[in-house]
Amino acid sequence: MYTLAELADRFGLGFTGEAGKILTGIATLAEADAGEIAFLANRKYLPQLASTRAGAVILPPALVECCPVACLIAEAPYLAFARISHLFDKSPRPAPGVHPAAVVSPDAQIHSSVAIGPNAVVEAGAVLAAGVELGAGVYVGHDSRLGAGTRVLPHAVIYHDVHLGEHCVVHAQAVLGADGFGFAPGPAGWEKICQLGGVRIGDRVEIGACTTVDRGTLGHTVIADGVIIDNLVQIGHNCRIGKNTAIAGCAGLAGSTTIGADCTLAGGVGVVGHVHICDHVHVTGMTMVTKSITEPGSYSCGTPMMSTRNWKRNAVRFSQLESIQKRLAAMESRTGQPDKG
Amino acid sequence: MYTLAELADRFGLGFTGEAGKILTGIATLAEADAGEIAFLANRKYLPQLASTRAGAVILPPALVECCPVACLIAEAPYLAFARISHLFDKSPRPAPGVHPAAVVSPDAQIHSSVAIGPNAVVEAGAVLAAGVELGAGVYVGHDSRLGAGTRVLPHAVIYHDVHLGEHCVVHAQAVLGADGFGFAPGPAGWEKICQLGGVRIGDRVEIGACTTVDRGTLGHTVIADGVIIDNLVQIGHNCRIGKNTAIAGCAGLAGSTTIGADCTLAGGVGVVGHVHICDHVHVTGMTMVTKSITEPGSYSCGTPMMSTRNWKRNAVRFSQLESIQKRLAAMESRTGQPDKG
Amino acid sequence: MYTLAELADRFGLGFTGEAGKILTGIATLAEADAGEIAFLANRKYLPQLASTRAGAVILPPALVECCPVACLIAEAPYLAFARISHLFDKSPRPAPGVHPAAVVSPDAQIHSSVAIGPNAVVEAGAVLAAGVELGAGVYVGHDSRLGAGTRVLPHAVIYHDVHLGEHCVVHAQAVLGADGFGFAPGPAGWEKICQLGGVRIGDRVEIGACTTVDRGTLGHTVIADGVIIDNLVQIGHNCRIGKNTAIAGCAGLAGSTTIGADCTLAGGVGVVGHVHICDHVHVTGMTMVTKSITEPGSYSCGTPMMSTRNWKRNAVRFSQLESIQKRLAAMESRTGQPDKG
Repeated sequence: MYTLAELADRFGLGFTGEAGKILTGIATLAEADAGEIAFLANRKYLPQLASTRAGAVILPPALVECCPVACLIAEAPYLAFARISHLFDKSPRPAPGVHPAAVVSPDAQIHSSVAIGPNAVVEAGAVLAAGVELGAGVYVGHDSRLGAGTRVLPHAVIYHDVHLGEHCVVHAQAVLGADGFGFAPGPAGWEKICQLGGVRIGDRVEIGACTTVDRGTLGHTVIADGVIIDNLVQIGHNCRIGKNTAIAGCAGLAGSTTIGADCTLAGGVGVVGHVHICDHVHVTGMTMVTKSITEPGSYSCGTPMMSTRNWKRNAVRFSQLESIQKRLAAMESRTGQPDKG
Repeated sequence: MYTLAELADRFGLGFTGEAGKILTGIATLAEADAGEIAFLANRKYLPQLASTRAGAVILPPALVECCPVACLIAEAPYLAFARISHLFDKSPRPAPGVHPAAVVSPDAQIHSSVAIGPNAVVEAGAVLAAGVELGAGVYVGHDSRLGAGTRVLPHAVIYHDVHLGEHCVVHAQAVLGADGFGFAPGPAGWEKICQLGGVRIGDRVEIGACTTVDRGTLGHTVIADGVIIDNLVQIGHNCRIGKNTAIAGCAGLAGSTTIGADCTLAGGVGVVGHVHICDHVHVTGMTMVTKSITEPGSYSCGTPMMSTRNWKRNAVRFSQLESIQKRLAAMESRTGQPDKG
Repeated sequence: MYTLAELADRFGLGFTGEAGKILTGIATLAEADAGEIAFLANRKYLPQLASTRAGAVILPPALVECCPVACLIAEAPYLAFARISHLFDKSPRPAPGVHPAAVVSPDAQIHSSVAIGPNAVVEAGAVLAAGVELGAGVYVGHDSRLGAGTRVLPHAVIYHDVHLGEHCVVHAQAVLGADGFGFAPGPAGWEKICQLGGVRIGDRVEIGACTTVDRGTLGHTVIADGVIIDNLVQIGHNCRIGKNTAIAGCAGLAGSTTIGADCTLAGGVGVVGHVHICDHVHVTGMTMVTKSITEPGSYSCGTPMMSTRNWKRNAVRFSQLESIQKRLAAMESRTGQPDKG
């Protein structure tokens, strides 16, 4: 429970309206009631502002005039919303201490402030720094290290020799450090290459549910500070992902891929192995990156969605493109236009 | 063990053949033996009917004449097969009661008929209705609610504030209620937006193995009654999925997507955020839905599979389509045909 | 710790350099130090050979002359590397015996040499052969069987009636034997078809983290000897995968798909249901296989990645391909060229 003036003060915002107004939660413009804060970060929702019943709205200075209720004035309203959201987070945390149903090696090094849930397992040589939280059933392998304030949600599995920095979040069922997909063809079939490297993850990294980050074959798989990765993403062995890069759900990176800093890969993107993507690259949804990208910018592939009936016709023509081009070139040469194909 | 007449009576089917014939199982037309039932729902398999050794075949009235063995006559043979399959289901269930190796909060509300497997964890405030089954290692977070008859298979993780209706099935390693992928860009990198909403799931919903359904940012992620979702599917925060919609494996829905009722998304489909798909839409495999769909029907994108050698030639031409179109238009204007490009 | 001569002898390799040279590890050409082995299997890395500081390099006979340090000479250097990597594998294994926090049915059949980690659960009727290792929290359902030397990493879930052969590896969070996605449309919505079959997996199969292999509807889902499957792969019910086939990450196979022996599916490939792929087929990344493949070879679909700006123009033209083709045909007929469209 906060007053309008308290919030403005705490987050460095201006405000209009009654300083002592009590605010107890946060909701959308359309749904917020008189005790709740809403926000307007996208002008698409401007029509909802006039009719909002929110107690206060976080918005940019230019929109204060349009707001029928109290304002929290922010140059970056979405960021202000992100920061204020933490005040209302009621997600439960494991109780401090080691749950009696956890199995913790006496040879692990556990800071006294760590919280370990039921059925969690911590192997010998593991190091858990101050404030680490392990949910129910989390597994931390031999010699793995979790930095201060890192939280691991139920049932995530961290293999041996995986290091996470400080203030990371790892969601349920994520797997860090499984074997890379490395096999050599032998006379009787595939022969396994032991995956001898580990995983090194920086600070403030978030890893989604059911996401897998493979260990390195030789050397480590490396994820830099501030990287955010959504659910069901595959990161192959020996990938290197630069600072503050964001990877959306269902994306997949083959082995030994390097991605720069401040990149965004949209949902379902695939990246083949051994390529390099420079800093500040955006890749649109479901694109397959088949070669290195050396210039910042936005990249895409694919064809537009249409009715299946229309699509079938055009798709057939795609498979005739080579001959269409040749027919066009033949026409051009017959009619005296140079062939540019 | 059932007689032919018993089956016909129980499922409202006609039959031909000996009423007292004993049937003990169900198998394919090609593999069924004299004690087993087979079914014929797809005329593609008609050639197998003549040589079947099944004890009885479920089939439509029009095919009775072609059947060399006893018949169970159904207007909808595939549906009759589905219903009869339940008679032969021998999948083991957790023993009723709470396994001694489970960890159940005294502040959870557990119906006396609930079965809870070893190493399952149920947090305070959780409510498990009559007949709920939790497999080994299932996690049910604070204040989550499971309706009567809902089954959760081993190791699925249900975060806090997730409600499931009655008679749902949640498969192994599914994750319901992990944080949505919500971050605001800040001066030093991404800043997390707390995901304050929950998940609300209706009755008779099936959720596949390793499928993730994120909690809402503000408000809930909502899945209506009768929805079926396959394995390895991602449902983003604040999605809303309408009644009886089916989503096949490896599909992914970005945040705030709305899908109508009675839709089918085939395998690997991706849907971008904040779009709306109306009722009765079918999307074919691996299509990316990049905009709202307002008309029922079937939608597609992509190009046809071909030999890599042919594909390479045509793919190069795809990247020249703009210039091919321009060359064609130029030819048309030179030869007096209007440019329709 | 091995001498150069010991390694050459053990793996049937030639060598140059000091027989007694001590080698304690393995690293990349660029990073190996004087006590480590490196390898050169891809001529792309030839420039690194001149400056390597490795103690010895595994390479083919033709390159011995170019190597500034000791050589281990192999016709197949990558394969030799794979085999030698096992000497340096330090990945921890669960201690032999049954951990006191495991829950093992007295009606399971457990070889005396089996290692079972904490919180693992083994149900009645399960059979674990000599040398089987179950990591922490692994679940093995009723009547499932694991052959000699098979290793299951933490938290993998094996449902009932799933058989694995010898020397398989199953990674964390994999799910073997969940229900196939089988439902019949009924008057009030989808009706579940019980999935009555099991899963049968051969010897030396590797299954990646968060990969799901569904059980059969009638009959089994079958994976032959030597198949390797990466992370986050979906294998639908009643699929059959031939010997030594490799499936990379994020691929998905719909139900009743048959894949031959010695195939490779690259990352993100999708295969629709009920098709047959013959032996020795390679499918490139993110291709959708929409029909059976009856000739060995390489198959592809999709469009090339380009800048989003260029892509948008070409993608629009894709949706006009049918009309472009018609316009071209009209031009051809006007100018006297036969229409081949």
